[in-house]
Formats: sequence, structure tokens, C-alpha cells
Amino acid sequence: MAVAARVNERVERLRTSLEEPLLVTTGVNVRYLTGLASSNAALLVDEEQVLLFTDFRYAEAARAVDGVEVVQSQRLLLKTVAERLKGRRIGFEASALPYDGWERLRDGGADLVPRRGLVERLRAVKDERELATIREVARITDEAFAMLAEERFVGRTERELSWRIEQLMRENGAHGVAFAHVGGGPNGALPHGEPSDRVVEPNELVVVDAGALLDGYHSDCTRTFATGDLPDDLARAYEVCLRGQLAGLEAMRPGTTGAQADAASREPIEAEGFGEMYGHGLGHGIGLLVHEAPTARPESTDTLETGNVITCEPGVYLAGRGGVRIEDLVVVTEGDPEVLSSYTKELVTVR
Amino acid sequence: MAVAARVNERVERLRTSLEEPLLVTTGVNVRYLTGLASSNAALLVDEEQVLLFTDFRYAEAARAVDGVEVVQSQRLLLKTVAERLKGRRIGFEASALPYDGWERLRDGGADLVPRRGLVERLRAVKDERELATIREVARITDEAFAMLAEERFVGRTERELSWRIEQLMRENGAHGVAFAHVGGGPNGALPHGEPSDRVVEPNELVVVDAGALLDGYHSDCTRTFATGDLPDDLARAYEVCLRGQLAGLEAMRPGTTGAQADAASREPIEAEGFGEMYGHGLGHGIGLLVHEAPTARPESTDTLETGNVITCEPGVYLAGRGGVRIEDLVVVTEGDPEVLSSYTKELVTVR
Repeated sequence: MAVAARVNERVERLRTSLEEPLLVTTGVNVRYLTGLASSNAALLVDEEQVLLFTDFRYAEAARAVDGVEVVQSQRLLLKTVAERLKGRRIGFEASALPYDGWERLRDGGADLVPRRGLVERLRAVKDERELATIREVARITDEAFAMLAEERFVGRTERELSWRIEQLMRENGAHGVAFAHVGGGPNGALPHGEPSDRVVEPNELVVVDAGALLDGYHSDCTRTFATGDLPDDLARAYEVCLRGQLAGLEAMRPGTTGAQADAASREPIEAEGFGEMYGHGLGHGIGLLVHEAPTARPESTDTLETGNVITCEPGVYLAGRGGVRIEDLVVVTEGDPEVLSSYTKELVTVR
Repeated sequence: MAVAARVNERVERLRTSLEEPLLVTTGVNVRYLTGLASSNAALLVDEEQVLLFTDFRYAEAARAVDGVEVVQSQRLLLKTVAERLKGRRIGFEASALPYDGWERLRDGGADLVPRRGLVERLRAVKDERELATIREVARITDEAFAMLAEERFVGRTERELSWRIEQLMRENGAHGVAFAHVGGGPNGALPHGEPSDRVVEPNELVVVDAGALLDGYHSDCTRTFATGDLPDDLARAYEVCLRGQLAGLEAMRPGTTGAQADAASREPIEAEGFGEMYGHGLGHGIGLLVHEAPTARPESTDTLETGNVITCEPGVYLAGRGGVRIEDLVVVTEGDPEVLSSYTKELVTVR
């Protein structure tokens, strides 16, 4: 196949940031640059051409990609890749390529330069088409939350509720479900627990954290519900968490660092004495992955920019008692942050 | 916390294979050894103790693990790990640890020894409890196939059918769905295509490949259905693929290599002139991951042993026309292979 004269705009933007050809081995980065969803593919981007390595299973789909030359490869992809890199100076994705892959390429005679975040940086700024997809998948998710809140919680297990919100997201048009965590009572204080067979009881908090998939893009929304009147400490935790969430949202503007946004959300929570119970970061970018750049955490070195899509999700966890997390999906814009999660953040009681 | 006197039997078996302490960074290996399901955990196994590193989010769950000392870590886990490894000779999981992680540990002063497959080798041989779970998740999957085959195919999209089998698996008791691929007509010739909005037509083949989850363990089953009378080439492809599948099954015995089992399945398919259309390997081990040791592929160096759970799934793909894949889940035993997929392999017509 002749070298294509034209490649897509994403590859062109990547090229402008390269000091040497880049070997892209992260599946989701290959997908971003080519549209090919494959569990076994790599892309070599140099000044003249783009080689797309994949095995038999994806060969037909790969040949439908514009502007690349397909190299049908062995199942152990890097064997084939290594043969093409011999003696060349090549950047590689150092935070993803396993040690063994690096060793194989090095032993094959490549001169390897560790590079980080080159494609992730592009992915962090969404284009209009990506934003449209994310808005739609967020809308589907919101609707599922609203429908779930019309149902009974008490007496159902976390697993039942988790499956129920999965169904609602799918019935509303999601192509898939990335996760659906439901934590009731003390389980809500385990910020990433798996849904269990524990039955939801009256007068407790239930954390529902769910993300759907549409055309490869994810949503992510968390709401915390009450199943009746709450003890004072849990009611107060909710209020304080919400105050932190609103402060975090307010800070999500271009030029703010992820660490600053995180700190903004932490301030009201710490002021009320709940700081120790907010043990994770404020948020994470989202797109083709549930967790991607930029991050908003105390140690984050990212700076927010227009077009980022990021979660805003402080939590307050009272060990053995219950947890609160309130999470919106947010587009960073020139003006006010565009909040994609429209389901109410007032405390909703379901019984 | 004091060093626990007793650890579990899996860790003990791992210890007997170690030449130096091993740092386990692969999430699923940490889960296998400790029961902790975490997206951010590592385990350091040495002769005297077992350190479990994880961040705030999983700390409470980690403290419930018997026989380990929990080290609550920074979100960037390997920072904390590196501090504990300074000056020590430590094995690491070379096929999974990213280059950056390796570099961080090395720069932290660890003397690193690349090790491969140490935990995977243990995981490949299932114990009775694991087998019971896998039998149950396979049964759930079979039932879903049987129920799906009672429904209409023609006129529904691949996506609708894919969602339908997901629902059936969940309603039959699966905790989750790992994948549900439906490929009709020419799309069935793309062995790992995503389900599309293509509507299933009469007189074609529809490949349905679905896997469910139960307590962390996966099933995997493929059946290919006809939606009416088939053109001769597709009908013949089905027969030939089934012959290969039965030959592959017959070969799945202790002492046979993965390459030999693969070759056994390939022989009848090649004899009928369809060899070129069978472009992937015969099967893969399955358990906590959908793809794990052992593999049955031309280049496989694994030898099957009692207690392996492996798929047997040859395929015949006629580009632009249609595909056939027939897949059973198999337990390798001292006697005949135990086939966990009970849904018929005769060609079933659904309209």
C-alpha cells in the first residue's frame, strides 16, 4: 500500500509535538488516533508515514483506517514491531509499556527514548464531536438516576440496585456500562467497594456511582441518597460534602491547577472538621477512559484548560457509619464550568 | 500490626517458587493472593512477612485481609513501595510493570530482578472452590444462550441481541458481564468486532460470544446460529469448524502442549481447505481474567495440566460473507476433558 498523503488531524497534532518517531502501544491511544478499537495494536508515527500493527483478528478493521499502512503482525505484536525499529531512535510510552516490551524492543536494536503523556495531552482536550458524545452519555446517566430515585431502595440489595441502574442506563441508550457501584450504610464508607448482597436499610445513606459508555466515551455520576430520616452526623456530612462540591466546581476554570481546584473543594470540608474523612482527590479527567488527564488531586501538576472534561467528586466517609459522595461531570470552558450532570444535588430521600 | 504467624496457602505456594522476595503489582494477582479487589494495590512477599500496599480508598478492605501487614500508601503507590525496597534485591513482574514503575523502583535504590509468570502459574491451576464458581458461571451462561435461542434474531440489531444476552446472564444470576459480542453476516467474519447497529438478516450466520462474571471469575462461550437456510459455503464452514472444535477438545489433556492442542484442531480445518480462514489460536486459560495461562496457540509453550480451565474455540471466517466460531469452556482433568458448556453445538436455526 502506498504511503497515504493525508492522515487525520489528531495524528498531525501529535506529530508537531514529537522530537523523534513515537511508538504508541496504549490501546486507547491507538483508538484515539485511528478509530481502531483493538486489544492488540500499536502505531508508529513518524514524519513520513503511520504504521498500524495489529494481528489477524483486527486486520480487516485496520484496513478500513484512512492514512495508515497496516502491518499484519504476530499475536506477540512487539516481535513484529521490533523488526521495524532496529537501529532507529524511537520514543515510547513509558508509563504504559511493560518492562518486558521495553526489553524486547531494546534487544531488537532500537534506541529507545521514554516519553510520557504525548497522546494523553491531546485526549485531555475534547473536540466538539467528543463533547457531543459525552453530553449525550451524561444525559442518559442522569435520566437513569432520576428513574432509579423513583423506585424503592429499602429491602433491595446493593447488587440489585447496581444492576437496576445498569439496566436503566442501557434502556436509555447507553452502549455499555463501565461501572455501577452502590454502597449502603457502612459500605458507603468504602469509597470503591464492590456492590454486595447487603440489604439497604431505612435511615441510612446510599452512595450510587455509575458510569455509562457511548461510542467509546464514558460518563461518571455519583449521588448519595437517604433512605429516611438521618442521624445528625450523616445529615451534616451530606451538607458539608455538598459545600465542598460546589466550591470545587467554582474552581474548575482554565488556568487553575488540578491541585488548586482540589484545595478549593477541601477548604469548606476541613473548616467543618471533616477533612480527615475526605481521603481521595477531587476529580479526574474522563473520555475514552474513566480515568485520564487532567487530574484534580493535592499532588496534581495538571493545569485545567478549555475543553477538559473532568469529574468534581468530593467525599466524606464516616467509617462504620456511612459515606457521602457527590459527583458531577464538568466541561471546562472560557466562561462558567459547564456541568453535565443535571440530577439534583439536594438530598433526596427514597425509601 | 504484628507480623501474622499464618498466611494463606496460595502465598505459601508462591513462596516455595521464589529466589528472592517478589513484588506483585498486577491487580489480579494481588486479588488472587489476598482476596482484595483494588485498582491500586501491591504486595511484597518475602520469607518473613507479606506487606500489602494500598491507598486510602481500599485501606479498610485491606485491613480485613488475614496474614498481611497493610501499608497505607500514597495514590502514586510505587513511591511508597520504593521507600521500602531501597538496597534490597527484589523480583518484579516484568511482563506487567510499566517501564516507568521499573525506573522509579530502580532509582529508589532497589536491585531489581525481572520475573515472569510466578503468580500466573499458580492461577492457571484452579482449586475446587474456583472450579465450583466457574462451573456455576458457565451454567448461567449456557442458560442465557438457550433462552436467547428461543427469541427472534432477524430484524434485531447486533447491539440489541448483545444487550439481550447480557440481561439474560444477569437475570440468571451473573454478578456482571465481561463481554457480549454479536456479529451477524459479514460482521461475523471480524473475529473481535464490536456489536453494531447492523440488523440481522435471514439466511446468514450470527456469531454470539459472551462471558459472564461471578465472584470475580469469568465464563466464555461462543455459539454460531443460522437465521434460515444457509448458502453452501457457510453451511460447510460450520461443519468444518465443529470438526476442528471436537478435535481440539479431544486433545485437551494433561501433558499435551498448547501448541499440540491447537494443531489438533487445525488439522481437520486445513484438510478441508479452510486453514487460511482460521487465523487465531485455539484457546486461552480463563479465571480471574478472561485471558490468562495456559494458552493453546501455534506458538504456545504451555503444557496443559489437571485443573486448567481453558477455552476451545476454533473459527472459520469467510471475509465479506460470514463467520463461524464454536467455543466451549473446558476443565483439564486426569480423565476426559470436562466440558462446562452444555448448550448444543449442532447448528441451531433461529429466525
